[in-house]
Amino acid sequence: MAIVLGPNQYGKAEVRVVAVDRSTARHSLVDLNVSSALRGDFAAAHTAGDNAHVLTTDAQKNTVFAFARDGISSPEEFGLRLARHLAGSYEWVTGARVAIESYGWDRITVGGAPHDHAFSRTGGDVRTAVVTVDGADVHVLAGLGDLVVLKTTGSEFWGFPRDRYTTLPETTDRILATAVTARWRYTGLDVDWNATHDAVRTTLLETFAATHSLALQQTLYAMGEAVLEQHADVVEVRMSMPNRHHFLQDLSAFGLDNDLNGPGAVVYHADDRPYGLIEGTVLRDDVPAAPAAWLSTPG
Amino acid sequence: MAIVLGPNQYGKAEVRVVAVDRSTARHSLVDLNVSSALRGDFAAAHTAGDNAHVLTTDAQKNTVFAFARDGISSPEEFGLRLARHLAGSYEWVTGARVAIESYGWDRITVGGAPHDHAFSRTGGDVRTAVVTVDGADVHVLAGLGDLVVLKTTGSEFWGFPRDRYTTLPETTDRILATAVTARWRYTGLDVDWNATHDAVRTTLLETFAATHSLALQQTLYAMGEAVLEQHADVVEVRMSMPNRHHFLQDLSAFGLDNDLNGPGAVVYHADDRPYGLIEGTVLRDDVPAAPAAWLSTPG
Amino acid sequence: MAIVLGPNQYGKAEVRVVAVDRSTARHSLVDLNVSSALRGDFAAAHTAGDNAHVLTTDAQKNTVFAFARDGISSPEEFGLRLARHLAGSYEWVTGARVAIESYGWDRITVGGAPHDHAFSRTGGDVRTAVVTVDGADVHVLAGLGDLVVLKTTGSEFWGFPRDRYTTLPETTDRILATAVTARWRYTGLDVDWNATHDAVRTTLLETFAATHSLALQQTLYAMGEAVLEQHADVVEVRMSMPNRHHFLQDLSAFGLDNDLNGPGAVVYHADDRPYGLIEGTVLRDDVPAAPAAWLSTPG
Amino acid sequence: MAIVLGPNQYGKAEVRVVAVDRSTARHSLVDLNVSSALRGDFAAAHTAGDNAHVLTTDAQKNTVFAFARDGISSPEEFGLRLARHLAGSYEWVTGARVAIESYGWDRITVGGAPHDHAFSRTGGDVRTAVVTVDGADVHVLAGLGDLVVLKTTGSEFWGFPRDRYTTLPETTDRILATAVTARWRYTGLDVDWNATHDAVRTTLLETFAATHSLALQQTLYAMGEAVLEQHADVVEVRMSMPNRHHFLQDLSAFGLDNDLNGPGAVVYHADDRPYGLIEGTVLRDDVPAAPAAWLSTPG
Repeated sequence: MAIVLGPNQYGKAEVRVVAVDRSTARHSLVDLNVSSALRGDFAAAHTAGDNAHVLTTDAQKNTVFAFARDGISSPEEFGLRLARHLAGSYEWVTGARVAIESYGWDRITVGGAPHDHAFSRTGGDVRTAVVTVDGADVHVLAGLGDLVVLKTTGSEFWGFPRDRYTTLPETTDRILATAVTARWRYTGLDVDWNATHDAVRTTLLETFAATHSLALQQTLYAMGEAVLEQHADVVEVRMSMPNRHHFLQDLSAFGLDNDLNGPGAVVYHADDRPYGLIEGTVLRDDVPAAPAAWLSTPG
Repeated sequence: MAIVLGPNQYGKAEVRVVAVDRSTARHSLVDLNVSSALRGDFAAAHTAGDNAHVLTTDAQKNTVFAFARDGISSPEEFGLRLARHLAGSYEWVTGARVAIESYGWDRITVGGAPHDHAFSRTGGDVRTAVVTVDGADVHVLAGLGDLVVLKTTGSEFWGFPRDRYTTLPETTDRILATAVTARWRYTGLDVDWNATHDAVRTTLLETFAATHSLALQQTLYAMGEAVLEQHADVVEVRMSMPNRHHFLQDLSAFGLDNDLNGPGAVVYHADDRPYGLIEGTVLRDDVPAAPAAWLSTPG
Repeated sequence: MAIVLGPNQYGKAEVRVVAVDRSTARHSLVDLNVSSALRGDFAAAHTAGDNAHVLTTDAQKNTVFAFARDGISSPEEFGLRLARHLAGSYEWVTGARVAIESYGWDRITVGGAPHDHAFSRTGGDVRTAVVTVDGADVHVLAGLGDLVVLKTTGSEFWGFPRDRYTTLPETTDRILATAVTARWRYTGLDVDWNATHDAVRTTLLETFAATHSLALQQTLYAMGEAVLEQHADVVEVRMSMPNRHHFLQDLSAFGLDNDLNGPGAVVYHADDRPYGLIEGTVLRDDVPAAPAAWLSTPG
Repeated sequence: MAIVLGPNQYGKAEVRVVAVDRSTARHSLVDLNVSSALRGDFAAAHTAGDNAHVLTTDAQKNTVFAFARDGISSPEEFGLRLARHLAGSYEWVTGARVAIESYGWDRITVGGAPHDHAFSRTGGDVRTAVVTVDGADVHVLAGLGDLVVLKTTGSEFWGFPRDRYTTLPETTDRILATAVTARWRYTGLDVDWNATHDAVRTTLLETFAATHSLALQQTLYAMGEAVLEQHADVVEVRMSMPNRHHFLQDLSAFGLDNDLNGPGAVVYHADDRPYGLIEGTVLRDDVPAAPAAWLSTPG
């Protein structure tokens, strides 16, 4: 028996690069949080403190800034450029993973017109991209995080088994709320990254809204299925959806009802913890799995 | 010399109440985080553990839910209703403060039409309200927090004194970015709370965008001044604006320029800490100060 | 009527300075988060973008690092040095406020002996100091934040009034848990800052533990009173104590009791929100108030 | 081609259970954050909203509280009890995963003696456990998170390759700081969970301190190797260690040196982002891999 080094990677996390296109008076900007990681033969650094193979994380950071100088057309394109460069930097580097968060900015409207160089941060969800170069293979995951959505009706939950510890009443009308994290995998690289991302996001939102839900699992599956049906470039979708519970408040102690169908506002309490957590994958059954694409990817 | 009890207050913080109007098929919702605090004669609870004067924080929470049953037209209106009730609950209660955060929800668009009961959380800034009842006086502060804005140009910073520790170069073209926290005071109570809040928010955004900035202080003052000029109901504005530094990245070590006016994207690093912090008040000089309105209010 | 500039201040927030004493092989370190703010005549910066009076926040940051070179014996001493320098930097500066968080580090024990230069971060509470120079006056507040404490018994809550919305049952045995934020004011400057801070912290902990509590207000007052009784340098204590509710879990639906005095573990649910929030001041009645000491200080 | 459901799981996250042993006057408490997830045949819930197989997450929460009534001797033991019960609950359930965070509490010392029922929260790192039942297999991972450690010397970094983007100078004396996340796998179940956890934690701390570091990778490997050498029950260690950069501050613009070996404090700036991130595994080469043990485990 011997003690040995197993899987490992290292890189620079959370490089906050902002690239501004000032080529005309109408500026635009890209605002990213970039994390890179290298895989390969780094055994000597671990066992002997020999750094001959260690492209510094500082250099990885510098590369992000230098590459941004050429402009950033999308997180996926920028991730591809970086990951290919890093994976090809030295013969002992066998792969690289670049994970990106992208923050949106809207033009501020002044006097009815979008301003040329003033912006407000788009709230809500964050766009994500993960590009992995693994030897000769290249994988691209697009995604989004923290897309908070809610339905005030059109959600039921009943028909579940009742064990000794089941006390939950059945319901045919509840609030359904979640914060969607989704990642989807493309097989090709000839994708209109920005347009497709927008379209997939729209599909997720529309399907959440339009699905009459009998279970959050059903909603999740419907969302993934719709993405695959409507977007031929996408072959696999992984989603994580916490059930952000909104409990109908019991007001009877104060002589008040809280009827769903009576007059007056219906009052709920939004709870923090605990929360249900539903995680699932929807995919095409004729596409080979790509575990390397998902390695070290949360969710 | 004796040891005595000084100023004190107590209440229930962060009651997360969601009120849904289901009176028609087109639902709407109000999503609030409500914190209440009572002031008055609570000396015996402190010095003797005698709770005869202590309206429980649990009852304060219950009151929030019960009052929500009647509907919530605005955070300010709901705060007024709660604060007046709490301040009048017992003769030993001399005042109450209700602080509210309000989270926005947009209808999800499905097939081009806003959905009746499906929503996505509006990102970006949070709407705030603080209502204080202090004896016979009633004070209302409206506000917003975390309104993140950025200009890619139209911001200079020069002409500052240079002491031994000043190394900053002057600049006539920098990124200006901040996250605005603003609170504004109304004197009257006959205000269209929602419309005025929207209008003040628009004024803040437009003025940030339109002001050619020589100092973040100048931008802050211009924003406050515009609010007072355009909104007669408002008598005082307090703002806190961190300077979210975006530093032009030096790429010369890699043989690259990073010229503001040349071809290619201009590359900046967004920094977390430290950050400048600018805080200021703009007010009408003929309106009496109202320190009670601001008591225990951060910012 | 005119629109005018009201109270304002500006500075650099969250300068993360670490000063290491390497004068012997047994190193020691001080790890601070320093925020400075200047008060004075900065009207022209606001109204005209004229920065002639604006000592840059960058220079304030540089000053923190430069002053650290001389060593840091305590947050209070370092804050005094900085605040006096900043307040005296230019004739138009009338005051300065330096707020500091200090993070503790314990020596790692290796083979039974504390290591010379390896440390682990002390968890738990953060030490704080706020020094304000206001014209000729100097104020020092010491403090701590996030001191999380809990009693499994020795806490009751009963005898409160019952209005329409009161449903809480009385209890003679509950868990009491809180996260103490405390700030205390010294009048003199001839204080052994570190020893006194340690002693006050001990008093707060011991008093929390030893007080049989009939109300969290009573515990708060007892803690403040003990600090004043035992520490002559301290003249005023302000505390903020959230009531971190631990609710006895009802297990009867599963055929289980949850008796406080029976066999087996007693099971509670720790709740996040909402929470009670108790805030209070304990002070000596023969000491003048010092509002300037507390200006812009949360809590 | 068809669209199909892939890997999925669901459960209740972050059940905050506190179990108090009050069997003698000297109370003790266990404070956990428990998340459960079930795996098995839940296809109908996804594709048809049929919940006949869905043991509710509410019931999973109830189970946590009910099982806590019997006492909790360690997170690992409690996780085993829960995971086995959940995995065995219905024939369509093929596996369960229970992830636990455990928060420590120290007795408050009063008058030199540890108090019977008053505690302060142990700061610093959090203890973790992940128990996975996968068919007939049972896996136990112990671990810790956010163990923040720092060395003021005894860390070098040099000998790395220099590509076009490498500007970092070599150093033979730097601060090394990190926040350790570690998880280690046991093969057997006959382990003294608490004693072994304490011992492994001590090994990690001592090895961090005692290792003269030429690379953070070297320190990581040394820590994992020491755990395996000293603890026969452990077969695999996975660690994630961000490099929390502390940069030597350049004070030359103010006429000051900042020499490591001269008089005066040495001044560093603690940076937030970006940071290096080193992740690695150390394991015994004669032990079969157990991917199911690590499924859905961050880090």
